[in-house]
Amino acid sequence: MDPNILHNLSYGMYIVSSFKGSSLNGQIANTVFQITSQPVTIGISINKQNLTHEFITASRRFSISILAEDAPLILIGRLGFKTGRTEDKFKNVKYSILGSGCPAVLENCIGYLEAEVVGTLDCGSHTVFLGQMQESKVIALAKPMTYDYYHQVKRGTTPATAPTYIKEEASKKQAGPLKKYRCSVCNYVYDPVIGDPDAGVTAGTPFEQIPDTWVCPVCGAGKKDFVSEGLRL
Amino acid sequence: MDPNILHNLSYGMYIVSSFKGSSLNGQIANTVFQITSQPVTIGISINKQNLTHEFITASRRFSISILAEDAPLILIGRLGFKTGRTEDKFKNVKYSILGSGCPAVLENCIGYLEAEVVGTLDCGSHTVFLGQMQESKVIALAKPMTYDYYHQVKRGTTPATAPTYIKEEASKKQAGPLKKYRCSVCNYVYDPVIGDPDAGVTAGTPFEQIPDTWVCPVCGAGKKDFVSEGLRL
Repeated sequence: MDPNILHNLSYGMYIVSSFKGSSLNGQIANTVFQITSQPVTIGISINKQNLTHEFITASRRFSISILAEDAPLILIGRLGFKTGRTEDKFKNVKYSILGSGCPAVLENCIGYLEAEVVGTLDCGSHTVFLGQMQESKVIALAKPMTYDYYHQVKRGTTPATAPTYIKEEASKKQAGPLKKYRCSVCNYVYDPVIGDPDAGVTAGTPFEQIPDTWVCPVCGAGKKDFVSEGLRL
Repeated sequence: MDPNILHNLSYGMYIVSSFKGSSLNGQIANTVFQITSQPVTIGISINKQNLTHEFITASRRFSISILAEDAPLILIGRLGFKTGRTEDKFKNVKYSILGSGCPAVLENCIGYLEAEVVGTLDCGSHTVFLGQMQESKVIALAKPMTYDYYHQVKRGTTPATAPTYIKEEASKKQAGPLKKYRCSVCNYVYDPVIGDPDAGVTAGTPFEQIPDTWVCPVCGAGKKDFVSEGLRL
């Protein structure tokens, strides 16, 4: 058995949102797929530990916002590496409240669709929710972000609750003046050869010279939460 | 409601295979996704009309072969636009029989995985099968073909039984010496500007000058089954 085969499955990058009473929540997901065309039904796989799972179970509604390729890591970090149990993920994020009361994130998205749950499949750690599409809108003409693009180009990481999470190998020791640093919260790696152009940190900037106000582009952790790639996490 | 939003969901391109007794069958699918990581479970959406659906229901096993970007349209056509009820789809296709008896296509594939069905969700026209991975192998280092690549670069079409099928608009009338021709079986469009390099038909070759032995690269239909794009199908 070679689990590396799983790296060759293709996915998009989405924000799945839901609500419970007046509380809103959303999360990043890559397992979103059309199941039937008449009527249009959409399947999503959501970890049972996630607040979004609790909200979808309660309201029987979810929305899918399709991330554009130019969505910044900080948006993915805010929605994907924080929990809605301790903070309001929608603070400072542009969204709409749809007819059903379900929110849909608009920021850096190509558009959204909203669905009513018509079936569920218990899959152990995750539930597959099957939803019939009720509302949908295209808001921008852009290239959808794929999971591959997120990993290869944006160099994003995967939270432990994702269906596609695989424990990373212990990092190898690095030497030289341009050392990589790893975020101890989300495992994002700052590579000085690339920098963090989204935040104005140009390619070639050593980690030590990044301003102290800089935060992890994925999860928002501070510079002090980074450790040299040589250290075992 | 704007169904165009559905074109922005991202998928890969796969061959799903199964068996019933000594009969083998396979089909093209794009809705293949990892659902959980511990244990690894895989979800697939299969049309109830398809022979592969009948075989998976009988044997409780399916394999997924991941198509590489360079897979020719003729392979996709043979597996995706024919039915295993009237012909042996595996004739002239390279495959392995795995430990469970399930076949896995090897041709133009990055590798395969095989799963045992542990759950099903009835979704109307389709069933979502949930399978626990039992066996997997990487056989080539290549870029996986995405559904977007299949449509944009390979200019492939979608059979009516696919989850993502959308009825095409009636074709607009075309004029000029380099007329496009559409396959009346699978709706593949021959565009003389692009030609069919896989089959040795160079860019710029008018349809009329293609040898009569040429067949549709998607479904294998003959040249006589093509109609001018100006005609209503």
